[in-house]
Amino acid sequence: MTKKILPGHGSGGKLMNDMISGMIKEILGRDSIQIDDSAVLEIEGGKIAFTTDSYTVTPIFFPGGDIGKLAVNGTVNDLAVMGAKPEYLSCALILEEGFGFDEFERILISMKESADSADIKIVTGDTKVVPNGKGDRIYINTSGIGVFRNPLQRKPIETGDKIILSGTAGDHGITIMSLRNNLNFSSALKSDCAPLNKMIDSVTEKFPGSIKFMRDATRGGVASVMNEITAGMNFSAKLIEEEIPVADEVKGICGILGLDPLYVANEGKIVIIADSASAEGITAELKKSEYGKNAAIIGQIDSVYPGKVYVETFIGGKRLLPLLVEEQLPRIC
Amino acid sequence: MTKKILPGHGSGGKLMNDMISGMIKEILGRDSIQIDDSAVLEIEGGKIAFTTDSYTVTPIFFPGGDIGKLAVNGTVNDLAVMGAKPEYLSCALILEEGFGFDEFERILISMKESADSADIKIVTGDTKVVPNGKGDRIYINTSGIGVFRNPLQRKPIETGDKIILSGTAGDHGITIMSLRNNLNFSSALKSDCAPLNKMIDSVTEKFPGSIKFMRDATRGGVASVMNEITAGMNFSAKLIEEEIPVADEVKGICGILGLDPLYVANEGKIVIIADSASAEGITAELKKSEYGKNAAIIGQIDSVYPGKVYVETFIGGKRLLPLLVEEQLPRIC
Repeated sequence: MTKKILPGHGSGGKLMNDMISGMIKEILGRDSIQIDDSAVLEIEGGKIAFTTDSYTVTPIFFPGGDIGKLAVNGTVNDLAVMGAKPEYLSCALILEEGFGFDEFERILISMKESADSADIKIVTGDTKVVPNGKGDRIYINTSGIGVFRNPLQRKPIETGDKIILSGTAGDHGITIMSLRNNLNFSSALKSDCAPLNKMIDSVTEKFPGSIKFMRDATRGGVASVMNEITAGMNFSAKLIEEEIPVADEVKGICGILGLDPLYVANEGKIVIIADSASAEGITAELKKSEYGKNAAIIGQIDSVYPGKVYVETFIGGKRLLPLLVEEQLPRIC
Repeated sequence: MTKKILPGHGSGGKLMNDMISGMIKEILGRDSIQIDDSAVLEIEGGKIAFTTDSYTVTPIFFPGGDIGKLAVNGTVNDLAVMGAKPEYLSCALILEEGFGFDEFERILISMKESADSADIKIVTGDTKVVPNGKGDRIYINTSGIGVFRNPLQRKPIETGDKIILSGTAGDHGITIMSLRNNLNFSSALKSDCAPLNKMIDSVTEKFPGSIKFMRDATRGGVASVMNEITAGMNFSAKLIEEEIPVADEVKGICGILGLDPLYVANEGKIVIIADSASAEGITAELKKSEYGKNAAIIGQIDSVYPGKVYVETFIGGKRLLPLLVEEQLPRIC
């Protein structure tokens, strides 16, 4: 019989200690769980970035990743888009009673591999167990600390600035949604979940004064990020439909489900707003990364509909992209 | 009808944005949720402490506190026992669909009051919503960053060192357990949930070289902390039963339920191991704080049962206190 999580695994007794030292520590690394309650870290003085996210995605395994990979990369990317170098990660687990040790182990291994690949250290952790029916197998919180090396200069956004997307829109959300609806026809469809810090480093280093805004387009997709930028401003964001990279599989499933890929979550895509002169160069630099090979300039800042986001369609029409009342897909991350 | 959490409150759309800016930000403070995904913090160079904990306590309101107060103080204390000054806190919420806004608001207010009282800033956050039956109203993760001012010197623990407990044992765990079992006869029984950082500051400042170990005795209680210290060591920890402060209400309920208060969780108590010469002074200093008024020297380090913890009972007998296989009380924090 497969070993399963018991209430005692979260109780502070021997059962928990054995799981932590025997498995979690073994996989995540000796520094991941301290004898003490806190990790002690050496930090250069100055500005640091600090972020937190809980991950409740369902299903927990999906093409292109799993909840563990997502939890590491999501927090890595949140730090990286600030212009910070991700350094340290915490890992807090809420396990549901009855969750299988084999799946738990796969997720821990995935977290460790993701952390190594993003060059971030998991330095502290916590484990709680909730009864059956009070959780959903596993929820993961990661908080991260990053150190600023090339902070964004954030000059004001102006008419004429270009909007760059680092790759195809909607891959993560549509992968999850198609799994839930048994629509996964194509093996090419998979989550874009990826650590973007190295790609971001290379563009911020080469174009220090040109990047005015950068954000990973997760929950709510590209349209929601653009709405946050334009809200209350005297400029608008124009997206050009034919320039927006969308994978054929994503287009197909969006058609079936009636979804707009611009509102669908990504887990490995960033939106950049940059001055017009550098936009081509930034896009070319992004394309050098495996995670940016489909990067494109997808629009520009103008003053046609101040405070709004709109898309110019293939046939030349204009359609507003408001902030949706709620996301189309729940529990996407 | 009371407003309740809907799936859309965690979806990255307008419903979520409105809740965050209209309520969470309003209560926790303008800095608690950034426009950006990360908080940018100014840190002096050197060592920092970094810790994380998820809180899943049930019930979420209890005499002496609630899950919000617990989530702030628990992380504050984890930093403080390292000798770090708690500076910054993150707040990640997992809300269950259907959870009432009125209770949610009470918890946010409690978090804000606790943070103010501990002098720590909530600087970044995250909100996720899970469907009914996949959570339990609210789970909170807090991660914290502390800066070292008076780091513990941690000289080796030796025979003759004294064991100090900062107050009565078992208040938090017994409060929760008596609530669950309708055993709350006495209005005097309440959780000891408290921010201990100021009390800890004052003892670490006055006795810089004398404190060899300090830990808050949460899950697993005093006995589990002592077991972590002695495991694999060539010394043992002797606790003297008649010296251990336990509230009458806690004694009574422990008797009814067959629990040992030394294994019951505390949320406002620390265990200190200090050299013999300073132990009285440290205890006197603890007593100056409202959270340390019942502090006592409860035992000492000896070499009678190397690697073990034992208690000398009222009648002079000796009883080993092993690390329990699992805690007596699940979901205590």
